[in-house]
Amino acid sequence: MKEIVSVIGGGSCAAEEYKVARAIGGLLAERNFVVLTGGLGGVMEAASRGAHEAGGLTVGVLPGQVREEANPFVDIVLTTGLSEARNVIVATSPRAVIAVGGSLGTLSEIAFALKHHIPVIGVGSWTLPEDRVPGEGVRPAATPAEAVDLVERLVRGE
Amino acid sequence: MKEIVSVIGGGSCAAEEYKVARAIGGLLAERNFVVLTGGLGGVMEAASRGAHEAGGLTVGVLPGQVREEANPFVDIVLTTGLSEARNVIVATSPRAVIAVGGSLGTLSEIAFALKHHIPVIGVGSWTLPEDRVPGEGVRPAATPAEAVDLVERLVRGE
Amino acid sequence: MKEIVSVIGGGSCAAEEYKVARAIGGLLAERNFVVLTGGLGGVMEAASRGAHEAGGLTVGVLPGQVREEANPFVDIVLTTGLSEARNVIVATSPRAVIAVGGSLGTLSEIAFALKHHIPVIGVGSWTLPEDRVPGEGVRPAATPAEAVDLVERLVRGE
Amino acid sequence: MKEIVSVIGGGSCAAEEYKVARAIGGLLAERNFVVLTGGLGGVMEAASRGAHEAGGLTVGVLPGQVREEANPFVDIVLTTGLSEARNVIVATSPRAVIAVGGSLGTLSEIAFALKHHIPVIGVGSWTLPEDRVPGEGVRPAATPAEAVDLVERLVRGE
Repeated sequence: MKEIVSVIGGGSCAAEEYKVARAIGGLLAERNFVVLTGGLGGVMEAASRGAHEAGGLTVGVLPGQVREEANPFVDIVLTTGLSEARNVIVATSPRAVIAVGGSLGTLSEIAFALKHHIPVIGVGSWTLPEDRVPGEGVRPAATPAEAVDLVERLVRGE
Repeated sequence: MKEIVSVIGGGSCAAEEYKVARAIGGLLAERNFVVLTGGLGGVMEAASRGAHEAGGLTVGVLPGQVREEANPFVDIVLTTGLSEARNVIVATSPRAVIAVGGSLGTLSEIAFALKHHIPVIGVGSWTLPEDRVPGEGVRPAATPAEAVDLVERLVRGE
Repeated sequence: MKEIVSVIGGGSCAAEEYKVARAIGGLLAERNFVVLTGGLGGVMEAASRGAHEAGGLTVGVLPGQVREEANPFVDIVLTTGLSEARNVIVATSPRAVIAVGGSLGTLSEIAFALKHHIPVIGVGSWTLPEDRVPGEGVRPAATPAEAVDLVERLVRGE
Repeated sequence: MKEIVSVIGGGSCAAEEYKVARAIGGLLAERNFVVLTGGLGGVMEAASRGAHEAGGLTVGVLPGQVREEANPFVDIVLTTGLSEARNVIVATSPRAVIAVGGSLGTLSEIAFALKHHIPVIGVGSWTLPEDRVPGEGVRPAATPAEAVDLVERLVRGE
């Protein structure tokens, strides 16, 4: 079984977020993680692209039923037709989740991942009120390298 | 088509939250709203119970496949087998959502409702960082009456 | 908990099927069953209409996210955004399923219902090869009255 | 984007079906198809195993939420928690579906695939009444080689 890390964030995003997500995708691929996303544009495309360019394997779980809606950097496209309910799959299948920016869809994925005790690292993403989150919330990281180092430590230990 | 309002919150809850949710269920039924919940215990049971006791109609959308898992105050039990993905249905079917307390599952429902531009009223529930939520976030209400008044104003206008 | 019966079949249908499904909806309502459908047109509309006209309660579980897509005879509209995956809810929530005609979507619902040991009655609908179906397959009925009598016997006993 | 073929069938199966599904998995991998299954035992395990042993890539979309429930030959495990609703993903994501034996769950997948105009090849599997299936139904194949040849012709042309 390969180790999967999801990268989540907006389907459209600022240039800076795109750059961050692409770097994260590349670093994950270098460390032999499969990169899972929601398969569309923005942060999803950037992370898939970075991983693809680094020779990694990418999986996209689409909300719709048309495989051509996937960005061109997704190797394995799954069509679901589930709309936002596919967020559960993206959030709970991986060993860790990295959120880059993101709005309400991203928030739903963060909630599902944390509920399943899957660690979530945020780069310029949501922070949640500490008193309402049982256990650890979104762990902040300042850079792609810091985020991926944290993932590696959490998933593979020292 | 009947007007639906969802009441969301923990599957187990403190006595005070139970009381609040039960009162909300009752007030919603008095104003002829169908009360939709996730069908289980805690806040879901309390809201269903309040509505049921006031002669209202209650719907429960279960995460599992066994209808007997519904609390005894649900009139119409739908089994989904979808686990947390059923949260999407609870969050996006109604005209408004009232959150009573709640943890990460509730947060996912708040995220889905707001994404679909469905108003969310919170009684002792999540507040979200204003700069990340496009449009209005969770609208706070101090009491069941205040929450239901707000729902009525938002759904039915003046 | 109210007793639910689902009526399934094509989203568009011949006039004769519409008539049959409408009669079935009416008979189910007279016997105090809630009528559950996929909420759209054709057989779903006809069954909802028959039940509605007889003073019954109707529920529609839509594949999409827009409640206005429900036919006008659905009292309780649930939006799912799940596309065909919502078939599972229609097929496995009720105490019995009546299929009127129907194509491949209907076939998927018959398969799910039978897998969950929920009896399926067919009026001019699929018959399945006996050697592949464990237990009872689709039970044929010639008329709406015969179908609803069979439902009542199976669900409520003598 | 890699080309995916799904292999569907019972979660437990006879030795002969296991052998057939394993051979199919191997042949698909040799022809560079990604093998998608529901991730569990029986035919799903056999197809994953055959592909894995031939050096191919395998994906499993589980009904549950526990990745350890996947058979050991699945490279990429997605957890859904959707129960049978995950059948939609297995049925509609690939370019073609091969059914080996199978019962009612398999029937639901055949229905979804055909509804989406995805060709289905059956080896000792369901045959559907011709008058109810719009277009081509389940195409029979006598051997693994015949099934995979047919897939290749349908997906990649001459």
